[in-house]
Amino acid sequence: MNAPTQPAHVTPQYPQREAPAALIEALSQRFGTQLSTAMAVRELHGRDESAFTTVPPPSAVVFAESTNDVQDAVKLCAEHKFPVIPYGVGSSLEGHLLAVQGGISLDLTRMNKVLSVNAEDLTVTVQPGVTRKQLNDDIKSTSLFFPIDPGADASIGGMTATRASGTNAVRYGTMRENVLALEVVTASGEVIRTGTRARKSSAGYDLTRLFVGSEGTLGVVTEITLRIYPLPEAVSAAICSFPSIAEAVNTVISTIQIGVPIARVELIDANSVRAVNRHSKLTLREEPMLLMEFHGSPASVKEQAEMVQEIARDNGGADFEWADTPEDRTRLWTARHNAYFAAVQSRPGCRCITTDTCVPISRLADALLDSVREADESGIPYFLVGHVGDGNFHMGYLIDPDDDAERARAEQLNHQVVTRALQLGGTCTGEHGVGLHKMDFLVEEAGGGAINMMRTIKRALDPDNIMNPGKVFS
Amino acid sequence: MNAPTQPAHVTPQYPQREAPAALIEALSQRFGTQLSTAMAVRELHGRDESAFTTVPPPSAVVFAESTNDVQDAVKLCAEHKFPVIPYGVGSSLEGHLLAVQGGISLDLTRMNKVLSVNAEDLTVTVQPGVTRKQLNDDIKSTSLFFPIDPGADASIGGMTATRASGTNAVRYGTMRENVLALEVVTASGEVIRTGTRARKSSAGYDLTRLFVGSEGTLGVVTEITLRIYPLPEAVSAAICSFPSIAEAVNTVISTIQIGVPIARVELIDANSVRAVNRHSKLTLREEPMLLMEFHGSPASVKEQAEMVQEIARDNGGADFEWADTPEDRTRLWTARHNAYFAAVQSRPGCRCITTDTCVPISRLADALLDSVREADESGIPYFLVGHVGDGNFHMGYLIDPDDDAERARAEQLNHQVVTRALQLGGTCTGEHGVGLHKMDFLVEEAGGGAINMMRTIKRALDPDNIMNPGKVFS
Repeated sequence: MNAPTQPAHVTPQYPQREAPAALIEALSQRFGTQLSTAMAVRELHGRDESAFTTVPPPSAVVFAESTNDVQDAVKLCAEHKFPVIPYGVGSSLEGHLLAVQGGISLDLTRMNKVLSVNAEDLTVTVQPGVTRKQLNDDIKSTSLFFPIDPGADASIGGMTATRASGTNAVRYGTMRENVLALEVVTASGEVIRTGTRARKSSAGYDLTRLFVGSEGTLGVVTEITLRIYPLPEAVSAAICSFPSIAEAVNTVISTIQIGVPIARVELIDANSVRAVNRHSKLTLREEPMLLMEFHGSPASVKEQAEMVQEIARDNGGADFEWADTPEDRTRLWTARHNAYFAAVQSRPGCRCITTDTCVPISRLADALLDSVREADESGIPYFLVGHVGDGNFHMGYLIDPDDDAERARAEQLNHQVVTRALQLGGTCTGEHGVGLHKMDFLVEEAGGGAINMMRTIKRALDPDNIMNPGKVFS
Repeated sequence: MNAPTQPAHVTPQYPQREAPAALIEALSQRFGTQLSTAMAVRELHGRDESAFTTVPPPSAVVFAESTNDVQDAVKLCAEHKFPVIPYGVGSSLEGHLLAVQGGISLDLTRMNKVLSVNAEDLTVTVQPGVTRKQLNDDIKSTSLFFPIDPGADASIGGMTATRASGTNAVRYGTMRENVLALEVVTASGEVIRTGTRARKSSAGYDLTRLFVGSEGTLGVVTEITLRIYPLPEAVSAAICSFPSIAEAVNTVISTIQIGVPIARVELIDANSVRAVNRHSKLTLREEPMLLMEFHGSPASVKEQAEMVQEIARDNGGADFEWADTPEDRTRLWTARHNAYFAAVQSRPGCRCITTDTCVPISRLADALLDSVREADESGIPYFLVGHVGDGNFHMGYLIDPDDDAERARAEQLNHQVVTRALQLGGTCTGEHGVGLHKMDFLVEEAGGGAINMMRTIKRALDPDNIMNPGKVFS
């Protein structure tokens, strides 16, 4: 583990709140060397990929190795009414892991076993610390795969907590559609199961989907049963450059509207291509670009690609450039997944404020083009990537964290992007979650009545407000 | 409206509980002729397609015409702490509509407008009284369709409440995957919205999916935003007869496991074929049969069908018989959808006890074949139909409602079917919901901890227990 790259600062908004000594003592007795109070470990667990740099770290970190460990940690925290914050790999972009009301960080990375692979049922059950790449490596020999791929090599637990998606969601859905069942440790330390391995069910309230996207605020997910898919018989990937973002977006809109079952269709802007070229030593044309992938039988893949090429050409797109071998495809998608880190590295010392709006597909051009224009006018370095087949895109504003004026300008841009998306019938967050950063936007989006219902559920399931408090709603 | 075919009887389990006179008076003042206390109307709203025939009818029926009507009806019932039971078309198979603790039936059939069709976004927003056939008629000119099709021409509100699915779910998912957002009147009469028209979102708790499948126990759904789909370029339907059920089931298991994107794959047994032949004047071979449909481009449809024909042949299946024209296909699927009614009519005066288990696909043969053997041994007339691509099948036991011994035997068979499904990792209900009939099974399936969490949510959102009480859990 590395020490954090920036020290944590105490600010008036987030005063240090230390765990009671008796709690630390009880945790120490129960967990021995699985408990750490070393400042470097605490600081590492007190931050994530978000632009929040000024929150005090958690009081201690428990490295859970079993559901029973999670139960006992939660029970001890419950006794002392002290917050518990589940921790996966720390790749949240929204401050989910930050101990804004103090807390014990519950590190789940040692719970990293693939518990069962039911290849004949296209399901798998994993512990929350398994990462998406680890899972796919693990099931490679079955000719099955798990499609959900946020950019980072996130943990399945974290992806469940944030209702994550990524590049394949346009074809395979998000965590919402692909989590079949969960084991959860509740706020009182009880273990419950929320579903079965059946593909569908009408058996009572959908607790599974209540926990998917609950951001650690209702309980700790300790097992996840997922759908997996047969590797497609044929896969082909292509890139296509466009004179402008508008033309790329219009190609995507038409592709979705006529129902081409495209597996991936990602937009990256010229800024992102530039950063990716530098970072991954590639020579992609530094123009707005769609990265696409088609899955199916050889004939169907060919047919899909021809249809999209025709639409692209009508919109001024270039000829497709193909990535035919698995190695070429891996290189292409690794470059795409690295776009975020490549862009962040393009401005040394910066932090990134990332938007995450998602709009109905017909409104994508409206949502996106104005956002680009405003970013260009602002003078703040930025990049744009998007899971555009879903109507979801990310503006990344690369700010100097010590320049308050720049941060304020970036937040203003973010605000404009969200306001526009809501006006267009969309959501403030397509896949990153609310965390700390979007609580006000959530109120605006959902309305007071829905927020009150969420609060009522939170109070009912976590009456002492110990599960990752201060996230989702204030 | 017709008078009920059987009179309601009061039994000790379900004593009559009449609405307070002051509530009826207040409803009458607010709703005038939209309120009915006529016994024929009450009795019609006090039963459904289930085998429960002995529950007293609701005290009155309010015919809501707007969200505001629903609000006012709920508020008046809330003032008097008296139950409200939302009513769609009465096609529940599980006693959802029965006033087991007394109640006001809230008939939503007049709220039957398609409010908006966003063809370019593949979404539609409807009132709860719109039926699935009405919706598809309404959007026919857009070349889009809504795929979810429980056998009955159910209301979209009822389908939302029970998390319904049907024959297309294997390809297009269930109501869980296809409801994007809801407007809901809560137990206190407040109106909330639970989502946006964006295809995906990570914005807070998934209230949409909490209400989908909540069986009217948490609030009344007053608007539903749904995903719709481009009509496939090519559709082809086929039937295939098999020497035995086992061989048909094994064909389905292999088809799903290799990932053929089949749109529909339905099993019907020889008993069902016989009933359908009589009912719909058809001449289908009276053997176990798969009814299939393939969607896609012409080439892809051909390819899919060839793959499945090959698998079927390996399993002793006959040559596919094709239904090529839209008319032939409609006839075929109408026959399938009428299987339930055809079977019920094959034993005059009977009521049907229907199982609804769903298991992981690899366990389907185990779950199904023992159920058939036990039914054969019981001597009770029965039929079998199944959405077998999802691992979901229905045994329908046709009982004489006045023969307690026969009812008990059928319930015993049902119990065995469910117990086996749970042992195989499945669910007691794939698509009909829990209602009155599966409350004990739900406890067995979900476990005490999950049931308690459901109860906690119910108590938090409906503290006076007025929303369809006595369903899902006792």
